[in-house]
Parts: sequence; structure tokens; C-alpha cells
Amino acid sequence: MPDYSDTTIAILGVGLMGGSMGLAVRERLGVERVVGYGRTARTLQQAVDVGAITDKAGSIAEAVRDADICFIATPVRTILEVTRAALEASASDCIISDMGSTKSSLMKALDSTGEKRFIGGHPVCGSETAGVANAREDLFEKATYFLTPGRGVDPSNYERLHGLLAGIGALPTAIDPDAHDRIMALVSHMPHVLANTAVNQVGGVNLDGREALLSAGPSFRDMTRVAGSNPQVWTDIFMENRSWLGEVLKEHGENIRRITEALERGDEDYIRQMVIDAAVNHNRMLEAEHLAPSDLFVVKVPVPDRPGVLSDVTVALGNAGINIDDLVFHRISVDQGGVLSLVVSGGETGDRAVSVLKEMGYDAVSVPYSSAEAG
Amino acid sequence: MPDYSDTTIAILGVGLMGGSMGLAVRERLGVERVVGYGRTARTLQQAVDVGAITDKAGSIAEAVRDADICFIATPVRTILEVTRAALEASASDCIISDMGSTKSSLMKALDSTGEKRFIGGHPVCGSETAGVANAREDLFEKATYFLTPGRGVDPSNYERLHGLLAGIGALPTAIDPDAHDRIMALVSHMPHVLANTAVNQVGGVNLDGREALLSAGPSFRDMTRVAGSNPQVWTDIFMENRSWLGEVLKEHGENIRRITEALERGDEDYIRQMVIDAAVNHNRMLEAEHLAPSDLFVVKVPVPDRPGVLSDVTVALGNAGINIDDLVFHRISVDQGGVLSLVVSGGETGDRAVSVLKEMGYDAVSVPYSSAEAG
Repeated sequence: MPDYSDTTIAILGVGLMGGSMGLAVRERLGVERVVGYGRTARTLQQAVDVGAITDKAGSIAEAVRDADICFIATPVRTILEVTRAALEASASDCIISDMGSTKSSLMKALDSTGEKRFIGGHPVCGSETAGVANAREDLFEKATYFLTPGRGVDPSNYERLHGLLAGIGALPTAIDPDAHDRIMALVSHMPHVLANTAVNQVGGVNLDGREALLSAGPSFRDMTRVAGSNPQVWTDIFMENRSWLGEVLKEHGENIRRITEALERGDEDYIRQMVIDAAVNHNRMLEAEHLAPSDLFVVKVPVPDRPGVLSDVTVALGNAGINIDDLVFHRISVDQGGVLSLVVSGGETGDRAVSVLKEMGYDAVSVPYSSAEAG
Repeated sequence: MPDYSDTTIAILGVGLMGGSMGLAVRERLGVERVVGYGRTARTLQQAVDVGAITDKAGSIAEAVRDADICFIATPVRTILEVTRAALEASASDCIISDMGSTKSSLMKALDSTGEKRFIGGHPVCGSETAGVANAREDLFEKATYFLTPGRGVDPSNYERLHGLLAGIGALPTAIDPDAHDRIMALVSHMPHVLANTAVNQVGGVNLDGREALLSAGPSFRDMTRVAGSNPQVWTDIFMENRSWLGEVLKEHGENIRRITEALERGDEDYIRQMVIDAAVNHNRMLEAEHLAPSDLFVVKVPVPDRPGVLSDVTVALGNAGINIDDLVFHRISVDQGGVLSLVVSGGETGDRAVSVLKEMGYDAVSVPYSSAEAG
């Protein structure tokens, strides 16, 4: 692992996410300087008190002035504006990455400028708690950390950010911004809407004095755990992603309509098939969590040094479910490009990465990590 | 607590629920004889092996022959038939109670016969696991245990069952069968349907090779924890309660339609209000769990000895959210009736119980438990 002691990290927005990032880089990577900027003096002081930041800044410009890497963890609808201010005020080698839950509109706005230093990010580790007081250095441990590298991003910037995130225990994985927002509508925003609407529906029912809500058992409690969390944060997320969320909810509404019709006509087979299908899907989801760890392999890919290559390669591997443990780009020259080395777990994963890359026209090989080190 | 060592318990259906009841009465009440009956010799033997039952029976009649209390924990659609067989084969003082998730149609069928010995039951402690191998003696600990006393039930039978359930740590609460099924549609059956349908919707989405299901974070995992559990058991429950479940799901579909429309027209206020309301409802649900324990009071109610009184009184108190820790019926004579003593926690709860009972025309008083004991 590189020595991070001289790295300066800026964190704009010191809530749960930003604060946890500060704790993580300090405690896990030995970063000695974390400069924070927040909306109120009180929040900033709290961030110092819990150890999430070491220095308070009075403005975005002051926070990013000496930063090597800047994380933007402000509410989702302010991210574009804050990013622009951070890009303008920071040094030309400062990497900037946000932590917002939606990526599509942000990347559209920034990617068109051919931005080299900005990489979209989204750690999937929501919590029903908020605020820096709940920040934890292990919040990102084993959490999928989506990255949306724009077409103009410099591979060495991506490499540095990927390395830092892997270093704090996250699982960075590149994804296309539109695919990201559609998937988040399905696996995050829809569950939040269902939790909210279910608790409101049940909350309105009172039978002869008995409140339905107070009879809730564990299944209802689990499905509504996130209900009502952070009204403004979640309103912003729902609104930012409203086109995908609307589509996903329409489809859900159709599914519910089909189920009520099956119940009405007494169609037991339809109902049973729904549960059987769910058992298959549920197992598939749980099994993916418990893949056996295995030996490390390095996939080496010679790539040209031109815009879009890094995002094409990393997104394709991310889509194929290939987790990149580590990533290094060796630039040979602008003419000859360079070699991307991707560390993955297991020979089978290495082989799959090679075949994905070959289909894209790249000449990739996979070798055991030990022999790659020796060579 | 009464001495249960000479009590014989019969358990028909030795799966998770029946098996846990066997373990609970043996380990917590010192019951020495638990006779089990199950569909297969293998399941029955397994029930003996895990200690859930002490004796195996080859038929329902054999299982209930010497029983003082019989629990029916077979699949929900077989309960009526099994109950009739158990009533016929058991002694005239054997109490029979089921453990099924729906109560309305069962009670309609049995209550019309003026049944004295059958009391409907439903412990709210679902688990995604099934089978006697997963049985636990603490499954009912602090779980709401709904009871649906029919109009003909003998108060002393209700007293004995209530006492046994409180003795294994459950919170027995009487409820009207229709209200029970409607509330269960809301807080149990709907969450199960939403979990099943959500996991199926997401399971069908694959974007450029990336499976949406494998990007699920904690909110999706929590809301789908029960997805796919016990396909036949849940198909039975959904079908048994299909009229209430259908209504509840239609209302849910309407709520979803209103949300998608708000998203389409960009109505941020509507979305924010949904989350704010959910926060209020969610807090209300969580707070009800953490009511401070307080001193015990005894509510004494002189009642006539005629059909329906016990179910009227206990259901009204259950509806008012009043938990009855213990219940004793002292019969004076058939002409003069008797006195129902209800133990509740806290003077405020005792006062509320008195006012509910006075509104029903009963002359109730609440006294501290200690003075009631002394008197």
C-alpha cells in the first residue's frame, strides 16, 4: 500500500458519508491531514471532535487549496455546483470525486467538458442514521463503491482513487452512469419508496381502537427499517432520479395489479409461482455474497492512451461482475499507450476478464499474482 | 406459576412453530409429556431428537387422547379439518388452540357451533427458516400472540391457555378474527408480497451483463429478507386471506400510482410529505416497543357467566392496546357469574382498562397488584 501520510484529503460536506470517509482515510491509511468544509461551524467542529477531519476550512476554495484528493459529500442536488467550484479552486493534479446516490445528470454535465480529474462515486452503504456523529471508519468495509469514470479521465487519477478506496476496504467497481441510476432506482430508491408508503398505509389504519401499526411483526419492521429516514436527503434523491424511479415504480404497480387479479380469481398457481421465483432470485442474491475467496491473478491489458479507454474497460468488467481488487496503469508513452494491470481474485475470474477484454478487441492475459510479481 | 409437570401437551404438526412450542413448554414450564403427531415418521423422529416432543403418536386421535392442551400447527388450510378431528378425539376438558396465520374463516366455521374448548391462536413470530430443526424455545419470547376466543368459550379454558402462553414469554392479546386478518394483511402478508415481487422485478434486470440483483445494498436486502420463504406455506396464507390481502394491495397500488404521478409532474412537496409522514409513523411504531415497564395492577371485573362475555372483554382491551399479563376467572355461580381479574402493567394502563370496561357497561376497578394479593 502506498504511503498516504503526506496525502492531503479535502472533504466537502461532513455528514455521515463525508465524516466516515475522513475517519477511514485517517485510521486505515494513516492520512495525517483531512481538511473539511461544511455548512455550519457547529457541524465542522463536531467533525473535528469525532476525529473525522483535522482542519476546518471557511470556504470550498480554502478546503481544496492543498488537497490531493477531494471528496464531495454534500446533498445530491448541490453536487454539480460544488464540484465546479472545487475543480476551479484546486491544483491541476487534485482528484475530485463525489459520493452522491445518482450519477447520470452529474456525469452528463461534467463529462462533456472532457474532465480529467473528476470521477463520479457512490458508496452503497446507506444507513438510517445521519450526521457526522454517526460516522464510522468501517462504513465502507466490503461495500460496493460505484465509480463512473468519464471519457476524459486520466487513468493514473483513476488508479489513485481506486487504490485509496480499496485501501479503506471498499469494493470499487466502474459502471455506466445511466445503468447506475437505473439499478439504484431498483435496488435502493424503490425499496425506500415502498418502506415509506407501507408505513404510511398501515399508520392510517385503526380498527375498533386497535392501531394496525402497533401489531407489526419482524417482516414489517425489516421492510420499513429505512422509512422516514432523512426526508430532505431522500426527497432530493427521489427527485434527481425521478425518471428511472418512476419507470421502476410503474412496473412494480403492474406487478401488484397482476397479483391482486390472481388473488381475485383464486389463481393459486400464479401466487405459488411468484414465491418459487422469489426463492430462486433470493438465493441467487445471497449466494453472490458468499463466493469463496481465492488466489489473486493479474490481468494485463495493453491499452492506447486515449479518452474513454479506461472507462470502457473498467465499466465492461464491472458489468460482468468482475471485482477489481487493485488497478495500476503503467504509461509507456502517449504514442504507445500503456499497460493496465488489474488484480482479480481467482483464475476463473481472470479468464473471464480476459474473454470480456478480447471481445472488446484488447489483447489481455491473466497470470497468477505471484508470478506477475516475480516477473 | 402453576405446576405444569403433570400437564400433557399434544402438538399436531411438528414444524418450526409446533416444535418451538414443544421446546418452550418443556424448558420454560417443566412440562414432562409432549405428544407429537406429524405427516412423516422422519419429521416426528427429528422432533424427538431435538427435544421438541417426548412421545410420537401414529394418529391425531392417539396424540390428543391424554392431552390437557393441544396445539395445532399444521399448514393453514388443513387447520379446520385437523381441529374437528382433535375436538372429536380429545377429552371434554382438553383445550384446543391452533397456531395459524389467518383466523376469520376458521372462527366462522367453529364459533357457530358454540365451541367451549377451541381458542384460535396466532403467534406473530415468523421466521424465514422452517422445519423442526430450526425450532427454538425462545421463539415466542415477547412476541404478540393473538387469541380469538369464540363466543362460546369457557372463561376458565381461556384463563389456562392465556397463563400457559404468558408463561412461555409470549404476549397473549385477544382480537376479533376479521380485524386480525385485515391487520395481518397489512403488517405481514403485504410485506411478504412486496418482498417477493421486488426480488422478482430486480431479478429480471441485466444491463450490459450487469445483474441488478447483485448490486443490492442493505435496504434491498432487508426489505426482501422474507422473499421466497416456504412457498407452499405462504401460498396457503395468501390464498386464505386473499380478500383482505387483495384490498390492501389495491390500496398499495393506488399509493404507488399517486407517487409515480407526483414524480412525473416534479411535485417535490408531495414526495417530501410522504417521507415526513413516514418518519412520524415509523417513530410511532418504534416507540411503542420501548414503553417503560411499571408496577403491576389488577383490574377486577364482575361478569355474568354467559357466552361472549369473555371474548367481548378481552378483545376490547386488546384493541385498546392493553396488554394483559395474566388473567384469572373466579366463577361464583352460574346465576351470579364470576369475577375476572386482569393483571396489567402500570396504573395508567389499569385506569384505561377500567374506562374501556365501564364504557361497555361493566363495573371494573383497578388496584395495585400488591394490595390485591394482600386482600
